[in-house]
Amino acid sequence: MKLASLKHGRDGRLVVVSDDLAWCAAPPPMWPTLQAALDDWAHAEPILRGVAESLAHDAVPHARFHERDAASPLPRAYQWADGSAYVNHVALVRQARGVAMPDSFWTEPLMYQGGSDGFLGPRDPIPLGDPAWGCDLEAEVVVVTGDVPYGASRDEALASIRLIGLTNDVSLRNLIPGELAKGFGFFQSKPASAMSPVFVTPDALGDRWRDGKLHGALRVDLNGQPFGRADAGLDMTFDFGTLIAHAAKTRALGAGTIVGSGTVSNLGADGGPGRAIANGGVGYSCLAELRTVETIVGGAAVTPFLQDGDTVRIEMHGDDGHSIFGAIKQRVAVIR
Amino acid sequence: MKLASLKHGRDGRLVVVSDDLAWCAAPPPMWPTLQAALDDWAHAEPILRGVAESLAHDAVPHARFHERDAASPLPRAYQWADGSAYVNHVALVRQARGVAMPDSFWTEPLMYQGGSDGFLGPRDPIPLGDPAWGCDLEAEVVVVTGDVPYGASRDEALASIRLIGLTNDVSLRNLIPGELAKGFGFFQSKPASAMSPVFVTPDALGDRWRDGKLHGALRVDLNGQPFGRADAGLDMTFDFGTLIAHAAKTRALGAGTIVGSGTVSNLGADGGPGRAIANGGVGYSCLAELRTVETIVGGAAVTPFLQDGDTVRIEMHGDDGHSIFGAIKQRVAVIR
Repeated sequence: MKLASLKHGRDGRLVVVSDDLAWCAAPPPMWPTLQAALDDWAHAEPILRGVAESLAHDAVPHARFHERDAASPLPRAYQWADGSAYVNHVALVRQARGVAMPDSFWTEPLMYQGGSDGFLGPRDPIPLGDPAWGCDLEAEVVVVTGDVPYGASRDEALASIRLIGLTNDVSLRNLIPGELAKGFGFFQSKPASAMSPVFVTPDALGDRWRDGKLHGALRVDLNGQPFGRADAGLDMTFDFGTLIAHAAKTRALGAGTIVGSGTVSNLGADGGPGRAIANGGVGYSCLAELRTVETIVGGAAVTPFLQDGDTVRIEMHGDDGHSIFGAIKQRVAVIR
Repeated sequence: MKLASLKHGRDGRLVVVSDDLAWCAAPPPMWPTLQAALDDWAHAEPILRGVAESLAHDAVPHARFHERDAASPLPRAYQWADGSAYVNHVALVRQARGVAMPDSFWTEPLMYQGGSDGFLGPRDPIPLGDPAWGCDLEAEVVVVTGDVPYGASRDEALASIRLIGLTNDVSLRNLIPGELAKGFGFFQSKPASAMSPVFVTPDALGDRWRDGKLHGALRVDLNGQPFGRADAGLDMTFDFGTLIAHAAKTRALGAGTIVGSGTVSNLGADGGPGRAIANGGVGYSCLAELRTVETIVGGAAVTPFLQDGDTVRIEMHGDDGHSIFGAIKQRVAVIR
């Protein structure tokens, strides 16, 4: 089952979307928003699945689904907890900075509390107050949970996953060192993220969803050129069950919590840094990693961060070549 | 005007509360929850004020208001951004650890993104998985904002403040060093906080609300004994306008954002660390500060963190001696 939220008010209007993303149908009025459905999932899920089945058989009123009309499936959420599960990425960044990485990074997830009060729509511009802040994309996988009990096990955590999607976790790289030096984590350096037009239930992903990971190439284009094709199922040190259990160690998590994978990153074929697509590699899911590789290989980063008018596209194709979650397509818009 | 949420479902049921906290009345059904009212404040505020006026004149159906029936006014919120505005507190903690504090801490606010997917009710126990985690109270002032534009000025930020209240920002002190060392800020070390039973509009606070600060003694009791009486309006380096503007530097903030002051802390009369109430001082708003003073004065912390069954009470009295926001009264409950 695929779900989306058409732009409408603060929370959008929930719709069930056909597997090919061509059509959508309205759910019963008890669940006008995705958050309302997640709050009451035991009741909502079978009814929504009934709508999805009717939609597949043209047996319910429906309309064309246009990704451009979609908000993020949760236009705002009660929690956005972003991990950093591709530890290879962290190790590379540290190597470029000449900083040792603690061994514990391989055994205990990194996670930060992100802002969730307003996500950008998947086709919304990325508002940027100052290009000197070093605006970067970060292509990631996200899951949406139901209620997760305090101290949940990995298995309980995996069972709590309701939906899967993609995000562009926008980051302001040049604000990060100052914030991290203060010790309280990210705040200004993590402005609003954007989510994929559609979130999908685990069962609808078939073999793409296994071992608590989403498998397949995360297609990242920058200004219309292929930039990243890293496989989200490879080199993910911590699966989503482990990430969710980490978040729930000292408190329950509310339904509608969004948990992120961190920037998807694959090792190179030789076990070293990944190569650019033009050089036969799978490329990158953020500019920082490319700049890191440039630093390691050539002594200095040469690719700039995002500039006014730059465009980013993030999606994943199914085995049939069609988009699974729809495409995040954003343009950077300097606003001052 | 004073507002509360009676325990009901995930978001409570909004009520208007009389100034003496004795009575409550229901708002019109368009705004069943506080979040719904905040989302539509321009319309909701005058109507809610009308209910409050009618309540004051016994001109509307009303019922007894019992603080024990109240959830946190926002039982869950889209954002919880907690500052650390009493820099004296930060300086003390650093002094005890023998770590220098950057001068920038006096000129740029510290702030972390907290979890907001579920707040404890003001009379709910504090669930604690393991006493070895070092459970601490943190008595703070909070404000709730309306929509705040990207890059808002301090004046715009101040004008966005809808409501003011208190919080117990529960912290797990022994998990903090490990988390901060990883560089991503707090996560497991900041479990669910509790809010005061009632939030209050700025105008209803009279002279207690001025210069973007709440003035008056924050009354903190521990196991029935006076523990803290620090004045929330003193030694607050950054007012709420500055804190909100800091949060909004790189993104808009959604209506219902809760911004915290950080642990309230007053300097001693001699400009050094504050003294315990038993020693003629105003005491402390968290155990960590007492332990810090113990370390500075006597070489080691002697007061333990919260244990199973310990009780915490946080409130503020008006000039008439009555509670302004109602009392946060919590008991620590070890759950494993």
